[in-house]
Amino acid sequence: VPRRADPTAVRRANLGVVLGHIAASGPISRARVASDTGLNKSTVSSLVAELAGLRLVREDVDRRVASIGRPATPVMVTGTTVAVGLEVGVDGLTVCLEDLTGALRYAVRKDCDLRDSEPYSTLRQLATLAGDALSYARAHGLRVVGLGVGLPGIVDASRGQLLRAPNLGWQEVDVARELGRLLPLGTLSIAVENEANLAALAELWVGGAQGLKGFIHVTGEVGVGSGIVIDGQLFRGSRGYAGELGHVAVRQDGAACACGSRGCLETVVGIEAIRERAGMPPRPGTGQLAIAIELAQQAAAGDPCTVAALEEAAEALGIALSSAINLIDLEVVFLGGFLTPLAPWLARPVREALARRVLSSAWSTFDVKVSALGAHAAARGAAAVILRVILERPWLVEEMALTDGGGPPRRRQPSATPSGTP
Amino acid sequence: VPRRADPTAVRRANLGVVLGHIAASGPISRARVASDTGLNKSTVSSLVAELAGLRLVREDVDRRVASIGRPATPVMVTGTTVAVGLEVGVDGLTVCLEDLTGALRYAVRKDCDLRDSEPYSTLRQLATLAGDALSYARAHGLRVVGLGVGLPGIVDASRGQLLRAPNLGWQEVDVARELGRLLPLGTLSIAVENEANLAALAELWVGGAQGLKGFIHVTGEVGVGSGIVIDGQLFRGSRGYAGELGHVAVRQDGAACACGSRGCLETVVGIEAIRERAGMPPRPGTGQLAIAIELAQQAAAGDPCTVAALEEAAEALGIALSSAINLIDLEVVFLGGFLTPLAPWLARPVREALARRVLSSAWSTFDVKVSALGAHAAARGAAAVILRVILERPWLVEEMALTDGGGPPRRRQPSATPSGTP
Repeated sequence: VPRRADPTAVRRANLGVVLGHIAASGPISRARVASDTGLNKSTVSSLVAELAGLRLVREDVDRRVASIGRPATPVMVTGTTVAVGLEVGVDGLTVCLEDLTGALRYAVRKDCDLRDSEPYSTLRQLATLAGDALSYARAHGLRVVGLGVGLPGIVDASRGQLLRAPNLGWQEVDVARELGRLLPLGTLSIAVENEANLAALAELWVGGAQGLKGFIHVTGEVGVGSGIVIDGQLFRGSRGYAGELGHVAVRQDGAACACGSRGCLETVVGIEAIRERAGMPPRPGTGQLAIAIELAQQAAAGDPCTVAALEEAAEALGIALSSAINLIDLEVVFLGGFLTPLAPWLARPVREALARRVLSSAWSTFDVKVSALGAHAAARGAAAVILRVILERPWLVEEMALTDGGGPPRRRQPSATPSGTP
Repeated sequence: VPRRADPTAVRRANLGVVLGHIAASGPISRARVASDTGLNKSTVSSLVAELAGLRLVREDVDRRVASIGRPATPVMVTGTTVAVGLEVGVDGLTVCLEDLTGALRYAVRKDCDLRDSEPYSTLRQLATLAGDALSYARAHGLRVVGLGVGLPGIVDASRGQLLRAPNLGWQEVDVARELGRLLPLGTLSIAVENEANLAALAELWVGGAQGLKGFIHVTGEVGVGSGIVIDGQLFRGSRGYAGELGHVAVRQDGAACACGSRGCLETVVGIEAIRERAGMPPRPGTGQLAIAIELAQQAAAGDPCTVAALEEAAEALGIALSSAINLIDLEVVFLGGFLTPLAPWLARPVREALARRVLSSAWSTFDVKVSALGAHAAARGAAAVILRVILERPWLVEEMALTDGGGPPRRRQPSATPSGTP
């Protein structure tokens, strides 16, 4: 039942509309914001003043344009509000700072083999990396508004918990609470999410998927994960566990998978499976991306074993993605993580499999693209999840700020996830 | 941007709220409608009077209750507004009339083998069946508000077109336009939809899925289709072609499928595949449901060939459904169509496969249920799609009515689908 409009709600909604528009368009005049959004000019001026008061936008004095009457000074989003993005990968830890303009401000990667690792000591290492990033932010006058964490498994985002990560060997780890406890700076907003979902969101917000209706982002991260976006939203399914492409069965009686099942896509396309089939000896301590680059070099040099291993991987990937598109109907497949250097051997056969196996293929086009986000995709997505909260609800920025650009930390109640996380 | 409420829009929305509430609750007093919906009593009385004027509700004089002051006469939805539901199956045509209370008023099934049939002569037969139903409606004073059609293939619902039905051998058939042209009574609202989607909607609205968050309804209809419901809505994917479970690959180098691919679920679980593996000779002209019942009898009698064929079907179904739930995350699987009589051999192994193969299985429960809707599921869903439009936007009923309960037909512009079809 429609109700009367609440003026505070209207003003807040418009505040988000104006900030979102400035963020999307880059430096822009208030008059242009007004004509683009349909809001009147005095409303826009007042909203811009409020956003400037929150230090979310500033005037771009370098681009002041002479115009009839007063000079029009464009406004732009400031780069001083950042979020921390973390990723626990099976072969390493990543931390980054991303700012509200979408720029990466700080990124550190620590390679380490986390297969069958102990969760709490690993989270202590992660907290140390996050602490370094927070120190960097404080030293550089950056305001931190929260922290996002990507994990390679099934996550209960609403409770900030990892339920199960077969390749780490972790089960039921209360990640948000543990990080909140470990970080020396009191409490802050922590969002926890599956890393493949975060990589898909990064592709949507700062990568090659901007404006796409529906896509699946496949991330090779030792195992194989995927994030699905439909109508600009992360698709979570009925209870939040959607997107487990790596555990789609592609072999009737295939190899045993870490998940307990058999013949999962991961058993053919996981980095260890490809390496082994290619006849490359184990590379303990070497990251999956480095192994994939080495495999790509061997394949480019014409090594028949490696080429055969990649053909088999492409065939399995084609089967799993055709099943996914028959079930979900998506336009584009992105290959990310360690699949990126291997894409020259994967993209064409996958495209052909989709054309042959998807029932709607005569009426639909499917494209297979390569992600350009590299190893930081999930960590950048984790930071972006927090920053999107600010873009949509700018009035929360002071409440969410952990540091005030060098000032003392604020004390607040911990919250597992910012409400409204997509 | 929120706007001022439009009084007509508010009244119309409330009209739908009140009708929907009366339909869902059965005979109910105006006072109770007011307290349940939060609308005030005089508004409810005036809305009920408007709905009675549209002949969508009536007083239930048999249940008048003595109360303090005036006696309270409950109101209920009338059974005089009906929609025609049609289904083109691979082995027959179905027509039904369903009324606004959800009751089936008329149902006729015509068995015929439509494999590799000629679309336009088949649609002429379908129009003849629909004409009989319309005559029945006219003779019994029923007001027909539209016609829904289920088809076993990929449908462009927005244009009323069948794009591809591999088992019929049809491609690009303009079903809504052709039926609009063939039916003798001028124009009416025609909704065209995939039959498995309609069976899922029938399960949601009048079957065993009421109140479920997310489920997949698997329909055996010679081939295998499925409809997916998430959060009470049909899940269509990015462009409307979602739910093709029958073409999920379950065998790496399996048998050729009618779709042009290999190893699709249909090649193992389709009725012909099971019949052949069970060693039963072909039964030309016999419907798939009759064949399935015969197979169930053979299996119950312990015929080892039939039991083995059903074990293989269960294994393939378990693989495909595990992949679907790993990708989409759903709570319940319904087995419908010819899978219903075979369910005693399928449900338990499928349940076990889900527990073993779905990554989230330790945190999720999956149930496998048997549909009770029988052979009319898709046709009833087709009629219900039209009736839902009336329940949500009751003011459209006079405009949509084809006959006025025996009066002369109205002439209007044809429309491929009622806007607002889910």
